[in-house]
Amino acid sequence: MSGSLVIAGLGPGAETLITPEVTQALAQATDVVGYIPYVARVAERPGLTLHPSDNRVELERSRHALEMAAEGRQVVVVSSGDPGVFAMASAVFEAVEAGPPEWRNLDIRVMPGITAMLAAAARAGAPLGHDFCAINLSDNLKPWDLIKKRLRLAAEADFAMAFYNPRSKSRPEGFARTLAVLNDACRDARPVIFARAVSTPEESIRIVPLPEATPDMADMRSVVIVGSSTTRIIHRDGAPFVYTPRSVPA
Amino acid sequence: MSGSLVIAGLGPGAETLITPEVTQALAQATDVVGYIPYVARVAERPGLTLHPSDNRVELERSRHALEMAAEGRQVVVVSSGDPGVFAMASAVFEAVEAGPPEWRNLDIRVMPGITAMLAAAARAGAPLGHDFCAINLSDNLKPWDLIKKRLRLAAEADFAMAFYNPRSKSRPEGFARTLAVLNDACRDARPVIFARAVSTPEESIRIVPLPEATPDMADMRSVVIVGSSTTRIIHRDGAPFVYTPRSVPA
Repeated sequence: MSGSLVIAGLGPGAETLITPEVTQALAQATDVVGYIPYVARVAERPGLTLHPSDNRVELERSRHALEMAAEGRQVVVVSSGDPGVFAMASAVFEAVEAGPPEWRNLDIRVMPGITAMLAAAARAGAPLGHDFCAINLSDNLKPWDLIKKRLRLAAEADFAMAFYNPRSKSRPEGFARTLAVLNDACRDARPVIFARAVSTPEESIRIVPLPEATPDMADMRSVVIVGSSTTRIIHRDGAPFVYTPRSVPA
Repeated sequence: MSGSLVIAGLGPGAETLITPEVTQALAQATDVVGYIPYVARVAERPGLTLHPSDNRVELERSRHALEMAAEGRQVVVVSSGDPGVFAMASAVFEAVEAGPPEWRNLDIRVMPGITAMLAAAARAGAPLGHDFCAINLSDNLKPWDLIKKRLRLAAEADFAMAFYNPRSKSRPEGFARTLAVLNDACRDARPVIFARAVSTPEESIRIVPLPEATPDMADMRSVVIVGSSTTRIIHRDGAPFVYTPRSVPA
């Protein structure tokens, strides 16, 4: 039997946010590969081998998955959220491009998932209802100067912004610098949504005006959404709704 | 029984891309409201009333849904893709904000879905694997000058870009102008992905270098993804993979 490699998105956490397509791929897999906490979300069963691996070994993990697919196994690489958004799909294609030519003609498919920013946006209302951008704030992967440039241009374009990987123990200062750039560029009190562990039992949503946002409000399980200049808050009993109107008048 | 309003994303087309959360909400609904082709995706059953409506009546449709929820019905507003991305969620919140105060305290929930750009990206590889933006090209909703400004700033930021509503019969010239701005701003042959009706029987994916992209390659069922300057193509037997690497070297 020919091998295959599926790169699948498990969504933000809840079982009810995993697409049937991904559930079916997992049911047919012989091997599941991924970062430890994501592989832990896949149920064990006879005939399935789980291959959890540590963070920051994305290329090794990709090569391992490709080798097993080339040997004829049905391999699923799991990501949280959507595999194409700051997750495993790009890592696998980096490994394909740098690897042996025969890897290019493997049966490789990407299966989308509910990415963190869309799950977070849904919880808050519709903050991404108009033009927006998504930026990975990890400066493991690019220089801080490029992040800063993108933040300034995104503010000038008046995009709403979604930030992945806002903060880690190894980079405690990066998110503080991000907030400083945004306050300087935006100079208003647009809402900032700190969404942590959306759709899991540890979920929390916190909404603050930009000048009151502080770095400790985010961690590596958070996605942060910053409104555009037109984003609005609807106050009500309980948590407010935050939404960005669809139109900008001429 | 208290009424409720769910704003649900049906994903790009395939049944296997609808989340179980949304399937369950539809099973409990008394009323489903939405644009005609999206309501047509919901199976009829006893106890369920379908309320299809035409395009461009999003606010009326939202008010109708809110009125029914206020009367105690279990209402689901359906969108294609994700309801929070250029779809019905913002329209509903616009109606809530402008409507009677009691609408604010209704049980309103947004349920995310697989949005078109992520389904399209998955088919092509991982073109949105690094920082990116999403722009609605419809100039029904904002002035062309703002679209042009955003395109130029997005190119300067070196975002990959996803375009919704690239072209309609009523605005045949808008997408031609978009391509002209991009060619002028980018001056390279980065890949452009035209993804039409992804996950439906009419799906087509076409990948061309930016200078060869023409307006007729898109229609209102298309989402268009333009790579960043670092986006790569992996040639192989059959359709190539397009991906954007995760990192940018210092």
